[in-house]
Amino acid sequence: MFTFVKMNIPSKYLEEAVEQFSSLPSIGKRTALRLVLNLLKRPEDELERFAEIIHHLKANIRTCNACGNISDTDSCSVCSNPNRNHQMVCVVEDIRDVMAIEGTGTYSGIYHVLGGIISPMDGIGPNDLFIQPLIDKCDQGNVSEVILALSPTMEGDTTNFYIYKKLIPSGVNITALSRGISVGSELQYADELTLSRSIQQRTPFTIT
Amino acid sequence: MFTFVKMNIPSKYLEEAVEQFSSLPSIGKRTALRLVLNLLKRPEDELERFAEIIHHLKANIRTCNACGNISDTDSCSVCSNPNRNHQMVCVVEDIRDVMAIEGTGTYSGIYHVLGGIISPMDGIGPNDLFIQPLIDKCDQGNVSEVILALSPTMEGDTTNFYIYKKLIPSGVNITALSRGISVGSELQYADELTLSRSIQQRTPFTIT
Repeated sequence: MFTFVKMNIPSKYLEEAVEQFSSLPSIGKRTALRLVLNLLKRPEDELERFAEIIHHLKANIRTCNACGNISDTDSCSVCSNPNRNHQMVCVVEDIRDVMAIEGTGTYSGIYHVLGGIISPMDGIGPNDLFIQPLIDKCDQGNVSEVILALSPTMEGDTTNFYIYKKLIPSGVNITALSRGISVGSELQYADELTLSRSIQQRTPFTIT
Repeated sequence: MFTFVKMNIPSKYLEEAVEQFSSLPSIGKRTALRLVLNLLKRPEDELERFAEIIHHLKANIRTCNACGNISDTDSCSVCSNPNRNHQMVCVVEDIRDVMAIEGTGTYSGIYHVLGGIISPMDGIGPNDLFIQPLIDKCDQGNVSEVILALSPTMEGDTTNFYIYKKLIPSGVNITALSRGISVGSELQYADELTLSRSIQQRTPFTIT
Protein backbone atom coordinates (compact mmCIF):
# COMPACT_ATOMS: atom_id res chain seq x y z
CA MET A 1 0.00 0.00 0.00
CA PHE A 2 0.89 3.58 -0.65
CA THR A 3 1.35 4.69 2.95
CA PHE A 4 3.56 1.69 3.77
CA VAL A 5 6.34 2.93 1.56
CA LYS A 6 6.18 6.51 2.71
CA MET A 7 6.29 5.87 6.46
CA ASN A 8 8.44 8.80 7.50
CA ILE A 9 8.92 8.49 11.24
CA PRO A 10 9.70 11.94 12.64
CA SER A 11 12.16 10.79 15.34
CA LYS A 12 15.23 8.60 15.09
CA TYR A 13 14.61 7.12 18.56
CA LEU A 14 11.05 6.24 17.60
CA GLU A 15 12.31 4.74 14.38
CA GLU A 16 14.84 2.64 16.31
CA ALA A 17 12.11 1.36 18.63
CA VAL A 18 9.86 0.55 15.66
CA GLU A 19 12.80 -1.25 14.05
CA GLN A 20 13.26 -3.41 17.15
CA PHE A 21 9.61 -4.37 17.45
CA SER A 22 9.26 -5.08 13.74
CA SER A 23 12.17 -7.53 13.99
CA LEU A 24 9.79 -9.81 15.90
CA PRO A 25 7.96 -12.48 13.89
CA SER A 26 4.63 -11.41 12.36
CA ILE A 27 5.07 -7.78 13.51
CA GLY A 28 5.16 -5.37 10.58
CA LYS A 29 6.30 -1.77 10.72
CA ARG A 30 2.83 -0.37 11.17
CA THR A 31 1.98 -2.74 13.99
CA ALA A 32 5.35 -2.00 15.58
CA LEU A 33 4.59 1.71 15.48
CA ARG A 34 1.22 1.10 17.16
CA LEU A 35 2.95 -0.93 19.89
CA VAL A 36 5.60 1.72 20.52
CA LEU A 37 3.02 4.53 20.64
CA ASN A 38 1.06 2.45 23.16
CA LEU A 39 4.19 2.01 25.30
CA LEU A 40 4.89 5.75 25.10
CA LYS A 41 1.58 6.47 26.83
CA ARG A 42 2.46 4.27 29.81
CA PRO A 43 4.04 5.44 33.08
CA GLU A 44 7.82 5.30 33.36
CA ASP A 45 7.87 2.43 35.90
CA GLU A 46 5.85 0.14 33.62
CA LEU A 47 8.40 0.65 30.85
CA GLU A 48 11.22 -0.05 33.30
CA ARG A 49 9.57 -3.32 34.29
CA PHE A 50 9.08 -4.29 30.64
CA ALA A 51 12.71 -3.48 29.84
CA GLU A 52 13.96 -5.42 32.84
CA ILE A 53 12.03 -8.54 31.87
CA ILE A 54 13.50 -8.48 28.37
CA HIS A 55 16.98 -7.77 29.73
CA HIS A 56 16.94 -10.77 32.07
CA LEU A 57 15.00 -13.09 29.77
CA LYS A 58 17.86 -15.42 28.91
CA ALA A 59 19.28 -15.42 32.45
CA ASN A 60 15.94 -16.19 34.09
CA ILE A 61 14.41 -18.68 31.70
CA ARG A 62 16.42 -21.87 31.65
CA THR A 63 16.01 -25.07 29.72
CA CYS A 64 15.80 -28.46 31.38
CA ASN A 65 19.18 -30.23 31.14
CA ALA A 66 17.52 -33.54 30.35
CA CYS A 67 14.76 -32.73 27.87
CA GLY A 68 15.25 -29.16 26.61
CA ASN A 69 11.86 -28.03 27.94
CA ILE A 70 11.71 -24.52 29.38
CA SER A 71 11.97 -24.39 33.14
CA ASP A 72 12.87 -22.13 36.06
CA THR A 73 15.11 -24.85 37.47
CA ASP A 74 17.71 -27.27 36.07
CA SER A 75 15.13 -30.04 35.77
CA CYS A 76 11.68 -29.25 34.37
CA SER A 77 8.42 -30.08 36.13
CA VAL A 78 7.83 -33.08 33.85
CA CYS A 79 11.30 -34.62 34.19
CA SER A 80 11.32 -34.13 37.97
CA ASN A 81 7.92 -35.75 38.41
CA PRO A 82 8.39 -39.35 39.64
CA ASN A 83 4.83 -40.25 38.59
CA ARG A 84 5.64 -39.79 34.90
CA ASN A 85 6.79 -42.73 32.80
CA HIS A 86 10.46 -41.93 32.16
CA GLN A 87 10.76 -44.84 29.70
CA MET A 88 8.43 -43.15 27.20
CA VAL A 89 9.82 -40.09 25.40
CA CYS A 90 7.75 -37.85 23.15
CA VAL A 91 9.89 -35.90 20.66
CA VAL A 92 8.54 -32.42 19.85
CA GLU A 93 9.78 -29.37 18.00
CA ASP A 94 9.20 -26.66 20.58
CA ILE A 95 7.78 -25.99 24.05
CA ARG A 96 4.45 -24.91 22.57
CA ASP A 97 3.99 -28.53 21.48
CA VAL A 98 4.70 -29.68 25.04
CA MET A 99 2.04 -27.25 26.25
CA ALA A 100 -0.44 -28.51 23.65
CA ILE A 101 0.11 -32.17 24.57
CA GLU A 102 0.07 -31.42 28.32
CA GLY A 103 -3.21 -29.59 27.67
CA THR A 104 -4.83 -32.84 26.51
CA GLY A 105 -4.06 -34.45 29.89
CA THR A 106 -3.65 -37.85 28.22
CA TYR A 107 0.11 -38.28 28.06
CA SER A 108 2.04 -39.64 31.01
CA GLY A 109 5.56 -40.01 29.60
CA ILE A 110 8.31 -37.40 29.37
CA TYR A 111 9.35 -35.12 26.50
CA HIS A 112 12.35 -34.32 24.38
CA VAL A 113 12.27 -30.80 22.91
CA LEU A 114 14.42 -30.46 19.78
CA GLY A 115 14.27 -26.66 19.71
CA GLY A 116 13.46 -26.66 16.00
CA ILE A 117 13.33 -28.99 13.00
CA ILE A 118 15.78 -29.80 10.25
CA SER A 119 15.25 -27.17 7.57
CA PRO A 120 17.98 -26.80 4.93
CA MET A 121 16.13 -23.76 3.55
CA ASP A 122 16.68 -21.92 6.85
CA GLY A 123 20.17 -23.37 7.29
CA ILE A 124 19.14 -25.55 10.24
CA GLY A 125 20.87 -28.93 10.29
CA PRO A 126 20.80 -31.79 12.83
CA ASN A 127 23.75 -30.29 14.71
CA ASP A 128 21.80 -27.11 15.45
CA LEU A 129 19.15 -29.12 17.29
CA PHE A 130 19.00 -30.89 20.65
CA ILE A 131 19.14 -34.40 19.11
CA GLN A 132 22.34 -36.06 20.39
CA PRO A 133 21.19 -36.28 24.05
CA LEU A 134 18.12 -38.24 22.86
CA ILE A 135 20.33 -40.69 20.96
CA ASP A 136 22.61 -41.05 24.00
CA LYS A 137 19.64 -41.65 26.27
CA CYS A 138 18.32 -44.40 23.97
CA ASP A 139 21.78 -45.96 23.55
CA GLN A 140 22.09 -46.19 27.33
CA GLY A 141 18.92 -48.33 27.36
CA ASN A 142 16.90 -45.92 29.49
CA VAL A 143 14.06 -45.62 26.98
CA SER A 144 11.50 -48.19 25.83
CA GLU A 145 9.49 -46.05 23.41
CA VAL A 146 10.14 -42.88 21.41
CA ILE A 147 7.04 -41.13 20.05
CA LEU A 148 7.82 -38.87 17.11
CA ALA A 149 5.41 -35.93 17.43
CA LEU A 150 6.66 -33.39 14.90
CA SER A 151 4.38 -31.38 12.63
CA PRO A 152 3.25 -33.28 9.49
CA THR A 153 5.25 -31.08 7.12
CA MET A 154 8.15 -31.90 4.82
CA GLU A 155 10.65 -30.58 7.39
CA GLY A 156 8.93 -32.55 10.14
CA ASP A 157 9.08 -35.74 8.06
CA THR A 158 12.76 -35.16 7.26
CA THR A 159 13.55 -34.71 10.95
CA ASN A 160 11.48 -37.79 11.85
CA PHE A 161 13.44 -39.82 9.31
CA TYR A 162 16.81 -38.54 10.56
CA ILE A 163 15.99 -39.40 14.18
CA TYR A 164 14.54 -42.77 13.16
CA LYS A 165 17.79 -43.73 11.38
CA LYS A 166 19.86 -42.63 14.38
CA LEU A 167 17.73 -44.54 16.88
CA ILE A 168 17.50 -47.86 15.03
CA PRO A 169 20.82 -49.22 16.46
CA SER A 170 19.54 -48.77 20.02
CA GLY A 171 16.62 -51.11 19.31
CA VAL A 172 14.14 -48.69 20.94
CA ASN A 173 10.49 -48.92 19.90
CA ILE A 174 9.74 -45.94 17.61
CA THR A 175 6.18 -44.74 17.03
CA ALA A 176 4.64 -41.63 15.51
CA LEU A 177 1.44 -39.67 16.06
CA SER A 178 -1.42 -41.11 14.04
CA ARG A 179 -2.42 -39.07 11.04
CA GLY A 180 -5.93 -38.91 9.66
CA ILE A 181 -9.04 -36.81 9.61
CA SER A 182 -9.45 -34.35 12.46
CA VAL A 183 -11.98 -35.10 15.17
CA GLY A 184 -15.06 -32.93 14.62
CA SER A 185 -14.18 -31.96 11.05
CA GLU A 186 -16.37 -32.62 8.02
CA LEU A 187 -15.08 -35.34 5.70
CA GLN A 188 -15.75 -33.36 2.53
CA TYR A 189 -13.36 -30.64 3.65
CA ALA A 190 -10.43 -32.94 4.46
CA ASP A 191 -7.54 -32.60 2.02
CA GLU A 192 -6.88 -35.49 -0.37
CA LEU A 193 -3.59 -36.59 1.17
CA THR A 194 -5.00 -36.74 4.69
CA LEU A 195 -8.12 -38.55 3.50
CA SER A 196 -6.18 -41.15 1.51
CA ARG A 197 -3.84 -41.75 4.47
CA SER A 198 -6.79 -42.19 6.79
CA ILE A 199 -8.19 -44.85 4.44
CA GLN A 200 -4.87 -46.70 4.12
CA GLN A 201 -4.23 -46.55 7.85
CA ARG A 202 -7.81 -47.36 8.88
CA THR A 203 -8.20 -48.77 12.38
CA PRO A 204 -10.49 -51.48 13.80
CA PHE A 205 -13.81 -49.97 14.82
CA THR A 206 -14.41 -50.03 18.57
CA ILE A 207 -17.09 -48.51 20.73
CA THR A 208 -15.51 -46.31 23.43
CA MET B 1 -10.25 -22.87 21.25
CA PHE B 2 -9.40 -25.74 23.53
CA THR B 3 -5.67 -25.11 23.78
CA PHE B 4 -6.16 -21.41 24.53
CA VAL B 5 -7.69 -22.16 27.87
CA LYS B 6 -5.16 -24.76 28.86
CA MET B 7 -2.02 -22.74 28.11
CA ASN B 8 0.14 -23.91 31.00
CA ILE B 9 3.41 -22.06 30.70
CA PRO B 10 6.12 -24.11 32.46
CA SER B 11 8.11 -21.17 33.85
CA LYS B 12 7.00 -18.17 35.88
CA TYR B 13 9.56 -15.91 34.22
CA LEU B 14 8.32 -16.95 30.80
CA GLU B 15 4.75 -16.37 31.93
CA GLU B 16 5.69 -12.89 33.16
CA ALA B 17 7.29 -12.05 29.82
CA VAL B 18 4.23 -13.37 27.95
CA GLU B 19 2.03 -11.28 30.24
CA GLN B 20 4.01 -8.14 29.37
CA PHE B 21 3.88 -8.69 25.63
CA SER B 22 0.19 -9.61 25.66
CA SER B 23 -0.55 -6.29 27.39
CA LEU B 24 0.28 -4.62 24.07
CA PRO B 25 -2.63 -3.86 21.73
CA SER B 26 -3.62 -6.67 19.33
CA ILE B 27 -1.11 -9.11 20.87
CA GLY B 28 -2.82 -12.19 22.32
CA LYS B 29 -1.23 -14.70 24.67
CA ARG B 30 -0.25 -17.11 21.91
CA THR B 31 1.35 -14.41 19.80
CA ALA B 32 3.11 -13.09 22.91
CA LEU B 33 4.53 -16.56 23.56
CA ARG B 34 5.81 -16.75 19.99
CA LEU B 35 7.48 -13.34 20.37
CA VAL B 36 9.15 -14.27 23.67
CA LEU B 37 10.39 -17.61 22.31
CA ASN B 38 11.84 -15.74 19.36
CA LEU B 39 13.62 -13.32 21.71
CA LEU B 40 14.97 -16.24 23.74
CA LYS B 41 16.82 -17.53 20.68
CA ARG B 42 18.68 -14.24 20.22
CA PRO B 43 22.13 -13.37 21.55
CA GLU B 44 22.34 -11.62 24.92
CA ASP B 45 23.51 -8.27 23.49
CA GLU B 46 20.50 -8.01 21.19
CA LEU B 47 18.17 -8.42 24.15
CA GLU B 48 20.12 -5.80 26.08
CA ARG B 49 19.73 -3.37 23.21
CA PHE B 50 15.99 -4.11 22.98
CA ALA B 51 15.58 -3.62 26.75
CA GLU B 52 17.55 -0.38 26.68
CA ILE B 53 15.42 1.10 23.92
CA ILE B 54 12.24 0.35 25.87
CA HIS B 55 13.77 1.68 29.08
CA HIS B 56 14.71 5.02 27.55
CA LEU B 57 11.67 5.34 25.30
CA LYS B 58 9.96 8.12 27.18
CA ALA B 59 13.19 9.99 27.90
CA ASN B 60 14.40 9.89 24.30
CA ILE B 61 11.21 10.48 22.36
CA ARG B 62 9.89 13.97 23.03
CA THR B 63 6.85 15.79 21.75
CA CYS B 64 7.01 19.15 20.03
CA ASN B 65 6.10 21.92 22.48
CA ALA B 66 4.06 23.74 19.87
CA CYS B 67 2.09 21.01 18.06
CA GLY B 68 2.37 17.76 20.07
CA ASN B 69 4.02 15.92 17.19
CA ILE B 70 6.75 13.44 18.11
CA SER B 71 10.26 14.80 17.77
CA ASP B 72 13.83 14.36 18.95
CA THR B 73 14.05 18.08 19.73
CA ASP B 74 11.80 20.63 21.44
CA SER B 75 10.41 21.79 18.11
CA CYS B 76 9.44 19.21 15.48
CA SER B 77 10.71 19.21 11.89
CA VAL B 78 7.42 20.63 10.60
CA CYS B 79 7.13 23.47 13.15
CA SER B 80 10.78 24.46 12.73
CA ASN B 81 10.52 24.57 8.93
CA PRO B 82 10.21 28.23 7.80
CA ASN B 83 8.88 27.11 4.40
CA ARG B 84 5.69 25.71 5.92
CA ASN B 85 2.60 27.89 6.22
CA HIS B 86 2.33 28.49 9.97
CA GLN B 87 -1.07 30.16 9.57
CA MET B 88 -2.72 26.88 8.49
CA VAL B 89 -3.13 24.24 11.21
CA CYS B 90 -4.28 20.69 10.54
CA VAL B 91 -5.79 19.03 13.66
CA VAL B 92 -5.14 15.27 13.86
CA GLU B 93 -5.61 12.57 16.44
CA ASP B 94 -2.14 11.04 16.49
CA ILE B 95 1.28 11.13 14.88
CA ARG B 96 0.33 8.32 12.49
CA ASP B 97 -2.10 10.76 10.89
CA VAL B 98 0.70 13.31 10.51
CA MET B 99 2.79 10.61 8.79
CA ALA B 100 -0.12 9.71 6.50
CA ILE B 101 -0.74 13.32 5.47
CA GLU B 102 2.99 14.05 5.08
CA GLY B 103 3.12 10.93 2.90
CA THR B 104 0.77 12.55 0.39
CA GLY B 105 3.20 15.44 -0.08
CA THR B 106 0.30 17.85 -0.70
CA TYR B 107 0.01 19.69 2.61
CA SER B 108 2.18 22.71 3.34
CA GLY B 109 0.73 23.93 6.66
CA ILE B 110 1.58 22.81 10.18
CA TYR B 111 -0.13 20.30 12.47
CA HIS B 112 -1.73 20.09 15.87
CA VAL B 113 -1.67 16.59 17.34
CA LEU B 114 -4.38 16.05 19.97
CA GLY B 115 -2.92 12.76 21.26
CA GLY B 116 -6.34 11.07 21.15
CA ILE B 117 -10.00 11.89 20.64
CA ILE B 118 -12.84 12.56 23.06
CA SER B 119 -14.24 9.17 24.01
CA PRO B 120 -16.50 9.02 27.08
CA MET B 121 -16.55 5.21 26.77
CA ASP B 122 -12.79 5.10 27.39
CA GLY B 123 -12.96 7.91 29.96
CA ILE B 124 -11.13 10.38 27.71
CA GLY B 125 -12.43 13.94 28.02
CA PRO B 126 -11.26 17.24 26.46
CA ASN B 127 -8.91 17.88 29.39
CA ASP B 128 -6.97 14.68 28.67
CA LEU B 129 -6.10 15.95 25.19
CA PHE B 130 -3.74 18.60 23.83
CA ILE B 131 -6.56 21.02 22.90
CA GLN B 132 -6.03 24.19 24.97
CA PRO B 133 -2.76 25.24 23.22
CA LEU B 134 -4.66 25.16 19.90
CA ILE B 135 -7.37 27.44 21.31
CA ASP B 136 -4.74 29.78 22.73
CA LYS B 137 -2.90 29.91 19.42
CA CYS B 138 -6.12 30.81 17.59
CA ASP B 139 -7.11 33.39 20.20
CA GLN B 140 -3.75 35.07 19.76
CA GLY B 141 -4.60 35.57 16.09
CA ASN B 142 -1.68 33.51 14.78
CA VAL B 143 -3.86 31.18 12.72
CA SER B 144 -5.96 31.85 9.64
CA GLU B 145 -7.35 28.35 9.00
CA VAL B 146 -7.89 25.25 11.13
CA ILE B 147 -8.44 22.02 9.18
CA LEU B 148 -10.22 19.37 11.25
CA ALA B 149 -8.78 16.04 10.09
CA LEU B 150 -10.07 13.51 12.61
CA SER B 151 -11.36 10.06 11.69
CA PRO B 152 -14.99 10.05 10.46
CA THR B 153 -16.27 8.17 13.52
CA MET B 154 -18.68 9.22 16.24
CA GLU B 155 -15.79 10.08 18.57
CA GLY B 156 -14.07 12.00 15.80
CA ASP B 157 -17.25 13.96 15.10
CA THR B 158 -17.73 14.71 18.81
CA THR B 159 -14.18 16.00 19.06
CA ASN B 160 -14.59 18.07 15.88
CA PHE B 161 -17.72 19.61 17.33
CA TYR B 162 -16.06 20.40 20.67
CA ILE B 163 -13.09 22.10 18.99
CA TYR B 164 -15.39 23.93 16.58
CA LYS B 165 -17.38 25.43 19.48
CA LYS B 166 -14.19 26.46 21.27
CA LEU B 167 -12.66 28.09 18.19
CA ILE B 168 -15.71 30.11 17.05
CA PRO B 169 -14.90 33.12 19.30
CA SER B 170 -11.47 33.50 17.72
CA GLY B 171 -13.07 34.01 14.30
CA VAL B 172 -10.63 31.57 12.67
CA ASN B 173 -11.70 29.89 9.43
CA ILE B 174 -12.60 26.25 10.26
CA THR B 175 -12.67 23.57 7.56
CA ALA B 176 -12.83 19.77 7.58
CA LEU B 177 -11.54 17.03 5.30
CA SER B 178 -13.98 16.32 2.49
CA ARG B 179 -15.92 13.09 2.85
CA GLY B 180 -17.09 11.04 -0.08
CA ILE B 181 -16.34 7.96 -2.10
CA SER B 182 -12.72 6.78 -2.02
CA VAL B 183 -10.56 7.34 -5.06
CA GLY B 184 -10.23 4.07 -6.97
CA SER B 185 -13.08 2.29 -5.18
CA GLU B 186 -16.12 0.85 -6.91
CA LEU B 187 -19.33 2.80 -6.37
CA GLN B 188 -21.46 -0.28 -5.68
CA TYR B 189 -19.34 -1.16 -2.67
CA ALA B 190 -19.49 2.28 -1.01
CA ASP B 191 -21.58 2.30 2.18
CA GLU B 192 -24.93 4.13 2.08
CA LEU B 193 -23.92 6.97 4.40
CA THR B 194 -20.77 7.78 2.47
CA LEU B 195 -22.60 7.56 -0.85
CA SER B 196 -25.46 9.80 0.27
CA ARG B 197 -22.97 12.36 1.65
CA SER B 198 -21.04 12.33 -1.57
CA ILE B 199 -24.26 13.15 -3.45
CA GLN B 200 -25.27 15.94 -1.07
CA GLN B 201 -21.79 17.42 -1.06
CA ARG B 202 -21.18 17.01 -4.80
CA THR B 203 -18.56 19.28 -6.31
CA PRO B 204 -18.35 21.11 -9.66
CA PHE B 205 -16.84 18.83 -12.29
CA THR B 206 -13.44 19.99 -13.49
CA ILE B 207 -10.89 18.40 -15.75
CA THR B 208 -7.53 18.20 -14.01
